[in-house]
Amino acid sequence: ARPRVGYFYTGKTGSELLSDQLKKLKVREHHSVPVVVNDKVSVYDAITTMFLEDVGTLFVVNESSLLVGVLSRKDLLRASMGNQDLSDIPVHIIMTRVPKIKICHKEDLLLDAANKLIENQIDALPVVIDREDGQEVVGRLTKTNVTKAFVDLVRDENV
Amino acid sequence: ARPRVGYFYTGKTGSELLSDQLKKLKVREHHSVPVVVNDKVSVYDAITTMFLEDVGTLFVVNESSLLVGVLSRKDLLRASMGNQDLSDIPVHIIMTRVPKIKICHKEDLLLDAANKLIENQIDALPVVIDREDGQEVVGRLTKTNVTKAFVDLVRDENV
Repeated sequence: ARPRVGYFYTGKTGSELLSDQLKKLKVREHHSVPVVVNDKVSVYDAITTMFLEDVGTLFVVNESSLLVGVLSRKDLLRASMGNQDLSDIPVHIIMTRVPKIKICHKEDLLLDAANKLIENQIDALPVVIDREDGQEVVGRLTKTNVTKAFVDLVRDENV
Repeated sequence: ARPRVGYFYTGKTGSELLSDQLKKLKVREHHSVPVVVNDKVSVYDAITTMFLEDVGTLFVVNESSLLVGVLSRKDLLRASMGNQDLSDIPVHIIMTRVPKIKICHKEDLLLDAANKLIENQIDALPVVIDREDGQEVVGRLTKTNVTKAFVDLVRDENV
């Protein structure tokens, strides 16, 4: 029999190869554009923005465009159940504030960001750039982004 | 040199192995418990249930426990912005109805279910069992389930 040439045992198993692929994915290629509101706007305006932009999470920024808070659909739904006039309540009253907010960076691994979403039971992470005076919001990473990456991983190889 | 024995070229590449692993995942092992409300309850009660159960989607069932509708956080948020009394509006007025609802089964591939979530831009699928008179809701498959499966896939192999 002719020798089988050209194939070399690399010491890798199938699952190591799987890991290699998954571990290459970065936040950079998978995040969405952020939807931000100023910290002075009302809860009513924030809810309107959430509908118009069709997102589940809004990031709240100050006049220097730095991250100061996060508003989830749940935060807004809870506020809207009270008997107050939503036009009278500024979002900074009900938002989750820095430094309680979980964030990620473009160069982070998608898996690490996905882990933060799961462990903290949140729907979205702001993708930020660190500046001297705070953090500038440049993206939004959601469970939708992770689910899409998961689906694309398999679809791409079937092309 | 001694012959290298025990390693055989299977014709598979790394990405085929990845696909094999991902394609094994079924809805069965990854879905959550469903949270259901009766189609007679008010929007106010549905919002309360959504908070108490801490879910993003409620399934609406009739007196025979068959699926008749779906309520998303967005549906409830939209309803709560109106000037009506939420205790007066039954959920069947605002819910998405069968047959417009996307569903999945326990034996479906997780990837196919994930694809339905992405393509239809929805947060959750009811996992159903087909009965003669309709569909019984036995689970809830969300982007959180898919994100968690994705994270676990890598974590498990690093143990």
